[in-house]
Amino acid sequence: MGPNSNPAKVLVVAGTHGNERNGPWLLEHWRSRPGALQSHGLELELVLGNPAAHSQNRRYLERDLNRCFAPSLLADASLDGADLQRARELLLSHGPAGEAPCLVVLDLHSTTSAMGNALVVYGRRPADLALAAGVQGLLGLPIYLHEADHAQTGFLVESWPCGLVIEVGPVPQGVIQAQICRQTQLGVEAALEVLAAAQRGPLRLPAELVVHRHLGSLDLPRRPDGSPAACLHPALQHRDWHPLQPGDPVFLDSHGATLGFVPPRGLEGQPVWPVFVNEAAYGEKGIALSLTSRECWPVSSEWPLALEALSNRLAQRGAPL
Amino acid sequence: MGPNSNPAKVLVVAGTHGNERNGPWLLEHWRSRPGALQSHGLELELVLGNPAAHSQNRRYLERDLNRCFAPSLLADASLDGADLQRARELLLSHGPAGEAPCLVVLDLHSTTSAMGNALVVYGRRPADLALAAGVQGLLGLPIYLHEADHAQTGFLVESWPCGLVIEVGPVPQGVIQAQICRQTQLGVEAALEVLAAAQRGPLRLPAELVVHRHLGSLDLPRRPDGSPAACLHPALQHRDWHPLQPGDPVFLDSHGATLGFVPPRGLEGQPVWPVFVNEAAYGEKGIALSLTSRECWPVSSEWPLALEALSNRLAQRGAPL
Repeated sequence: MGPNSNPAKVLVVAGTHGNERNGPWLLEHWRSRPGALQSHGLELELVLGNPAAHSQNRRYLERDLNRCFAPSLLADASLDGADLQRARELLLSHGPAGEAPCLVVLDLHSTTSAMGNALVVYGRRPADLALAAGVQGLLGLPIYLHEADHAQTGFLVESWPCGLVIEVGPVPQGVIQAQICRQTQLGVEAALEVLAAAQRGPLRLPAELVVHRHLGSLDLPRRPDGSPAACLHPALQHRDWHPLQPGDPVFLDSHGATLGFVPPRGLEGQPVWPVFVNEAAYGEKGIALSLTSRECWPVSSEWPLALEALSNRLAQRGAPL
Repeated sequence: MGPNSNPAKVLVVAGTHGNERNGPWLLEHWRSRPGALQSHGLELELVLGNPAAHSQNRRYLERDLNRCFAPSLLADASLDGADLQRARELLLSHGPAGEAPCLVVLDLHSTTSAMGNALVVYGRRPADLALAAGVQGLLGLPIYLHEADHAQTGFLVESWPCGLVIEVGPVPQGVIQAQICRQTQLGVEAALEVLAAAQRGPLRLPAELVVHRHLGSLDLPRRPDGSPAACLHPALQHRDWHPLQPGDPVFLDSHGATLGFVPPRGLEGQPVWPVFVNEAAYGEKGIALSLTSRECWPVSSEWPLALEALSNRLAQRGAPL
């Protein structure tokens, strides 16, 4: 049997960003006490995403590991650098065709934004949507659907056939907070519960999926030299997932004047929901907040089928690999 | 006239830690709009503490700049390194005997702990205590009196005849929040108001100073290999300045068990007040929280005299230097 026909595991990655400490704390905890995580019988691989960045308590060394998984980057032999090499290494060891193959990945992140306990889905792969719908059905978590943004590509979970980011905040970089860990663990356990249910089949999902679909991002207003000319308005701080209307305060300029929300071209006349408001790591990316559209989608009958097919290839604990 | 007899300025330092962004944001704002800061007529020097660390959004490069001001470190010619050199440079340019001499320093910090708007005083210099008492009289800010801790020395303000840290939180590292900036500015303006009042003299102060006097620090419980065996208990998160009794929850171990507060030797039988609870930057220093004793001190008549004497040597805006 080739490696691809072997029963595969579920990959749980934490510390893809080295200054997000809550996921790695959980990982160590689960490793030392396997019963501490309710895995619903599934075989897991628990992996520290970027050990070198983690040991320096930095998001990344040279290139954001969670933007390294673009096929063109991975394939470009002229590019190296520790983070991109780590991306290749993760795929060699735990990719869908890796040495210890994994078909589903849960990537644990934290944020300084008040995202609460949230899921991030990249694109519209049926298995991802099924998994997200199942978790939303269990816990009610909001879902940020990221797609069609050419400035932000190469996310880790996109290199596996199915994967979600579990994103919890607000928590400062470098800080472990028990409440953030608890929320993260709830998200992981719910995802594993859905995968196990899909494996047993048929997977029952809610009739609707509520997503916040990515529309674009707003940068801070900047001076000609590139330096910020305003900061986030305090009325918008910690208001992730709350609708923003034209004219609502968004920025506070250096004269103390409030700058109201002006919908970007193409988004006039519709309400938008901000996410990742004032996330520490996004300043360098030119993102003060992202804008989404809140949408209720009927759950397609294809989604659970896609997740069931994948889940049937996942190993159960105790079953021979 | 030698430089020491020249009228001196008040030094306002921000960004002593390069990943604390709120003070530097204010500095830029005040520089571009001098009227934006109510200086009560005092001449100010506005200085970015550690520009190299700021540009990398890191606390420091090699050595915490706010631990570099120990006379033995400053004088040791065998030690260099960017941060220590920066400490020497700050003293050469803005020290009490520097090129543009400053006699009072306000050092603007932020923290991931829920310290609110607070002052930190190092030791018991009469002028510092007068300034802190005056600010407490105006704004009611709590005061952390740091002293007698041989593991933590070399603070910037100790190299000037009078100086306070203004410490505001909680705010993540790398994040600018308008509310944190506003609180910081209130603290700076109150300190300048007290200095100007001392210059006019006689300085009227409240009858009492309430301080939280440093007693010691608690580290996380650790395994033999040095890794943390517990995290902060969620019941203690954001509970800076609230009294802690023996048995109150302090840590949560990897079995999910609560570890109650056991007073360190010498501190049995007295309540203690935690500060700097779960500060991101203190993990590497082995500090999960510090413990203080809340004390009401009568304001000594010597304190305002000491601050008046210093303030009389401060330049007023528009007066010839």
